[in-house]
Amino acid sequence: MPKPATDQINAVLAHVDRTIGESLERLFELIRIPSISTDPAYGDHCRRAAEWLSAELAAIGFDASVRDTTGHPMVVGHDKAASGAHVLFYGHYDVQPVDPLALWNTDPFEPTLQPLENGDTAIVARGASDDKGQLLTFVEACRAWKTVTGSLPIQVSMLFEGEEEASSPSLAPFLDKTAAELKADTVLVCDTDMWDRDTPAVTTMLRGMVGQEIEISCANRDLHSGMFGNAARNPLQVLADIVSSLRTPDGGVAIAGFYEGTCELPEAVHRQWQALPFDEDGFLRDVGLSIPAGEKDRSILEQIWARPTCEINGMSGGYAGTGFKTVIPAKASAKISFRLVEGQDPIAIRDAFQAHVRARIPADCSVSFKDHGLSPATTMPLDSPFLRKTLEALTTEWQRETALAGTGGSIPIIGEFKRRLGCDALLVGFARFDNRVHSPNEKYDLSSFQKGIRSWVRILAAFGDI
Amino acid sequence: MPKPATDQINAVLAHVDRTIGESLERLFELIRIPSISTDPAYGDHCRRAAEWLSAELAAIGFDASVRDTTGHPMVVGHDKAASGAHVLFYGHYDVQPVDPLALWNTDPFEPTLQPLENGDTAIVARGASDDKGQLLTFVEACRAWKTVTGSLPIQVSMLFEGEEEASSPSLAPFLDKTAAELKADTVLVCDTDMWDRDTPAVTTMLRGMVGQEIEISCANRDLHSGMFGNAARNPLQVLADIVSSLRTPDGGVAIAGFYEGTCELPEAVHRQWQALPFDEDGFLRDVGLSIPAGEKDRSILEQIWARPTCEINGMSGGYAGTGFKTVIPAKASAKISFRLVEGQDPIAIRDAFQAHVRARIPADCSVSFKDHGLSPATTMPLDSPFLRKTLEALTTEWQRETALAGTGGSIPIIGEFKRRLGCDALLVGFARFDNRVHSPNEKYDLSSFQKGIRSWVRILAAFGDI
Repeated sequence: MPKPATDQINAVLAHVDRTIGESLERLFELIRIPSISTDPAYGDHCRRAAEWLSAELAAIGFDASVRDTTGHPMVVGHDKAASGAHVLFYGHYDVQPVDPLALWNTDPFEPTLQPLENGDTAIVARGASDDKGQLLTFVEACRAWKTVTGSLPIQVSMLFEGEEEASSPSLAPFLDKTAAELKADTVLVCDTDMWDRDTPAVTTMLRGMVGQEIEISCANRDLHSGMFGNAARNPLQVLADIVSSLRTPDGGVAIAGFYEGTCELPEAVHRQWQALPFDEDGFLRDVGLSIPAGEKDRSILEQIWARPTCEINGMSGGYAGTGFKTVIPAKASAKISFRLVEGQDPIAIRDAFQAHVRARIPADCSVSFKDHGLSPATTMPLDSPFLRKTLEALTTEWQRETALAGTGGSIPIIGEFKRRLGCDALLVGFARFDNRVHSPNEKYDLSSFQKGIRSWVRILAAFGDI
Repeated sequence: MPKPATDQINAVLAHVDRTIGESLERLFELIRIPSISTDPAYGDHCRRAAEWLSAELAAIGFDASVRDTTGHPMVVGHDKAASGAHVLFYGHYDVQPVDPLALWNTDPFEPTLQPLENGDTAIVARGASDDKGQLLTFVEACRAWKTVTGSLPIQVSMLFEGEEEASSPSLAPFLDKTAAELKADTVLVCDTDMWDRDTPAVTTMLRGMVGQEIEISCANRDLHSGMFGNAARNPLQVLADIVSSLRTPDGGVAIAGFYEGTCELPEAVHRQWQALPFDEDGFLRDVGLSIPAGEKDRSILEQIWARPTCEINGMSGGYAGTGFKTVIPAKASAKISFRLVEGQDPIAIRDAFQAHVRARIPADCSVSFKDHGLSPATTMPLDSPFLRKTLEALTTEWQRETALAGTGGSIPIIGEFKRRLGCDALLVGFARFDNRVHSPNEKYDLSSFQKGIRSWVRILAAFGDI
């Protein structure tokens, strides 16, 4: 299929701008469904979100359905009426938990519009950015093409999952089962940031992740810390000793073999990153900090994009309520995640971590482990025609050179698309650095949403002549 | 007043045995009031417990009243009809929180009787032992004397507070205000253990306590650990480093100056303790452990009675729910308590701890502290006639030599009685080692309750000829 003519593209873009209010109303509807995937209490809401998406796809002419898994369901939709390239768009309708709820200024599941100092407007809600706002930019772009021209410029399939925030346990088996149906020329993902407010970015480097939960058990019951203190092992002390031992004084990770297989950044990439207008001080200042915590001889961009890390995501044990309780708890636990870079094997990292922990458990105590995700780092091929066309389309929409970025976050599913479908993925996102993703008062800028839709309109058109 | 005749004592003891069912029913009534002092939600219940106690004292002829404080109220009662010695009995009607609730086999505030393998019966409930069961042994002994003989052998005052588990913030000001009213020849406290099932004990050595809550703040909001991991300081890591730094590898406390002023145990006490039938292995085995955690060159009795310690009572921060959340929290906190021995100044220990923590807070992070109690260790004079008479009475009731014990726990109020009223205190308790005080399924043995009442009947009589 030939690339659509410029006036056709302009008509679709004009339609996007004219109907942005309706698009926003649909986003609000989706946000209002509290589809928290990690908490079993929200299972029905996850299914409702899947059904809502399936219905929306059907409404714009996709052959769409909700597909059961052993966890939260998938949504699959196809519109293959066009000839030419075939893309598979991936997004996730599940969201992070909202705690600590007290820090939200508004109900996390009742989206509100709030004016920003820069003249933009914030859509404030859990999932506004990650990933409901982002995934709808693509759906709304397809809706605009279909409404204005009756068809899409290329063949489009969509896949939405509801377990991305819960480490996507159902995705790999689902991709295996539906590989023939879902295989496409490229996968598109909208779950990443722009370079800055005005500069679009395509993310070409993703860290992998190993998530581990550990529970240390000492006494067979909670003890009075006065009666037993000193003599009885305190699992909180054991836990603190272990967590403390994970880091070296110079900001590195102290697990034996942790850096094995990692490489220095290619000189060319290093230079490109140094040329990016990145404000190291501003990055930390924005979150109230001033001293980088990672390896002392690395820039912040290296620390967050190209160096592996170990982060404590939660610790608990003993009494945490109001007041005080003189207890030595029977158990203490922590949630710990590792971000991996190219060359690190997630299984080897997990095993090295578990060995590190086991070596520090007193002989009369015990530890148990629970897996929460295991994915390698991935890097994108820089010579893909889809990438080239995307860069052109983004640069036209934003009137800025598009940045080729890394990201510290992990999208483990990218590795699965490569492994199960043989597809590379293109990561184009319109989130901004200050979106408070995973935090209270998460937001998505209205301009991210509107220009995101417009960007996809142009990208779909640009793919028309591949 | 002359000491009551033996047949009079026997008549009172027979009455105790005959009416033990009614005594038990009163204990159940008191237990059913969930007077958790550390949780503000239970404030009304604390007051109800105070009113219940005041009414019971009035019912046996005490001049009793509930006295307001800025916290939970006090109960004061007097029966000074007798001549001779005047004792002030102290107890606390508040109880510890019940979490983790899931580990209770029965409702913590619905007492149940459960047969024990040794033929005794357990009263299972929060507060059954600490301190509702224990304090009622004294009240019921007074009731028996009054019912059978119409009077008490000595002058008795009682003071019950409702903030013992919350560090007794109102006690010192209350004692100051009521010193003239409450001053007695000795204070009696029933909040300690027997030496073993069959051997009564008077506790002559108590550790002091410093309770501290710390909150470490890093970023100004929760962060995504993928986006910020490595570069942004993680308060959970800072907390773990600090907690880990509190202990030396050989089981000691690593805070500078911590052991300053502490002395070795007097040789005589050391010998007495070595002679006590204490099963070191059994002490730990009973709670599922086998390796003492404290200083390597100290016996377990020394570790828990005569050596200071630092215990982590709670740690929290980040995500602790089901599943996983890749967050770097803005804050992390811990509750930490120190048990002190003679020679340690609580204020100096607190200051040394806070300096130790502050020195380990990164320059762009901060820490705040909250006090939860501050009391020195205390030791009892061994030459008091009240102690001598108590030992005689206990030995008569239990037909065993009474042990002079230390205790690892702290009863900070003992120091206040000395300071505010000039009174020494006698600690006589009937709790047993396996009472699960502060833990799920707390219990008090029916024999502790009944023979505890009988013991006080004899002690009151023995005080008659001081």
